[in-house]
Amino acid sequence: MTTLTINKLCIIGVGLIGGSLARALRKFGDVNEIVGVGRDKAHLQRALELGVIDSFETDITKAVSGADVIILAVPLSAMQIVMAQIKDHIDSDAVLTDVGSAKNSVINAAQLVFGELPSNFVPAHPIAGTEKSGVEASFAELYENRRVIVTPHEKNNQAAVSKVIALWTDCGAVVVEMDPVHHDEILAATSHLPHMLAYTLVDVLARMDGSEEIFDFAAGGFRDFTRIASSDPDMWHDICLANRDALVPVLEKFSDELRLLADAVSQGDSTLIKDMFTRAKQARDQFCND
Amino acid sequence: MTTLTINKLCIIGVGLIGGSLARALRKFGDVNEIVGVGRDKAHLQRALELGVIDSFETDITKAVSGADVIILAVPLSAMQIVMAQIKDHIDSDAVLTDVGSAKNSVINAAQLVFGELPSNFVPAHPIAGTEKSGVEASFAELYENRRVIVTPHEKNNQAAVSKVIALWTDCGAVVVEMDPVHHDEILAATSHLPHMLAYTLVDVLARMDGSEEIFDFAAGGFRDFTRIASSDPDMWHDICLANRDALVPVLEKFSDELRLLADAVSQGDSTLIKDMFTRAKQARDQFCND
Repeated sequence: MTTLTINKLCIIGVGLIGGSLARALRKFGDVNEIVGVGRDKAHLQRALELGVIDSFETDITKAVSGADVIILAVPLSAMQIVMAQIKDHIDSDAVLTDVGSAKNSVINAAQLVFGELPSNFVPAHPIAGTEKSGVEASFAELYENRRVIVTPHEKNNQAAVSKVIALWTDCGAVVVEMDPVHHDEILAATSHLPHMLAYTLVDVLARMDGSEEIFDFAAGGFRDFTRIASSDPDMWHDICLANRDALVPVLEKFSDELRLLADAVSQGDSTLIKDMFTRAKQARDQFCND
Repeated sequence: MTTLTINKLCIIGVGLIGGSLARALRKFGDVNEIVGVGRDKAHLQRALELGVIDSFETDITKAVSGADVIILAVPLSAMQIVMAQIKDHIDSDAVLTDVGSAKNSVINAAQLVFGELPSNFVPAHPIAGTEKSGVEASFAELYENRRVIVTPHEKNNQAAVSKVIALWTDCGAVVVEMDPVHHDEILAATSHLPHMLAYTLVDVLARMDGSEEIFDFAAGGFRDFTRIASSDPDMWHDICLANRDALVPVLEKFSDELRLLADAVSQGDSTLIKDMFTRAKQARDQFCND
């Protein structure tokens, strides 16, 4: 049962996340018209051919005009620019939301552009995605049973918050409300840090002598471990910088513990090594059963 | 077409690796009798019930007597002890091989026990496995299309080397010969280091305040990334210490590069971040297409 009726949905940035949201709302939601916006006309044309959007605009001001729901699905580094472009063109009762992987930076951008946070702007983040990117990788089921974190602010109109929650619920997601700073800390630990580690590992190995042979002997575990290093470098650059306040402390914590482990390996400190591995295995077995 | 006929195969340590080898040789090879050995009688009984072995022995000296092929599939920390136990009981023409994840330490153990490396002892390492362990997780196809690295030594009898190669080929594996030091360096980079990182990450997160909530918001990428942290802690303790000469330098290299990345994030050095992520993505896309 759908809970939100949308007349004109405007998706700014029709990539994996924006494209999958369009597909999901078309398949499971109640939306009359989906307009895509972006900088690359060929890309929008592709989205149109794939049936992800009904039409597209390269003039963003026209695209947002008359839309009742506007989704910011652009890279984090483009959020502020796009907000400034649409500021004077969105309908007063339009609901504005985003899908950014860091929330504080998007809220700060909105504050800078709008002066005070608009009552209809509801920051959100679907905890979903793959290492693929682009509209070709989009699919309607991406958000099924996935968490979406919504981080409402003090100025929010409750009706706008409810609409954003309904939008994601219609896509099959499980919506949770959270403070944006807490969101950024959790994502730094569970998503941003692992991406840093995977990128760093692959780069270290790629720069070693005989790296081709090294990769040649990598087995299944390595493939799984490094899958996220195939993610879009520009997007992850943006996330690192947008969330640096939460990311740097957790990177430090990790580095300190890795140093302890390296010392324990050097010195043959069996107790420390076994204790750490045992704690980690227990924790992982508890939260994932695969 | 099988290439090696075995009359009595003795597998010391009937876990995931030893058990899967028994299953593979029974299914794809030509073996008359498979005897399992281990310390835990209930565990051997289970292997017998599962049809992995034909019989078992808890007296290792009886088990190896009369065997034409003997597989050391015990933890790395037990290799030297087991070699000492069987030394005076193996047939002079029996082929002895192992499945250890580090090769130099096994070779050193053999040197210590036997005085000089036996001509029939052929060190080997199948690059296969899962985060599961135990005979219950064993399956005949584990080695299909997987690499097995054989590290022959100067004293080796070529017939013994050929037999070990044939044994793994019969299991569907692709056998490669390599110097043991080089083996240890490659495995430190592609397997041992990633395990250290996964264990460390999960442990860091598990020790944070609100760790349950943290894991609750971990998505698919995190699950894949940390899968190897569900591996057996004792086994990985042994591997770390057995291969510490190769592992410590690559851990240092990784830590240094992670420090560079952390500094770049702190300072907003976009060029360094994008360059590193782009190199890593290119390298991974090149060696894995998934």
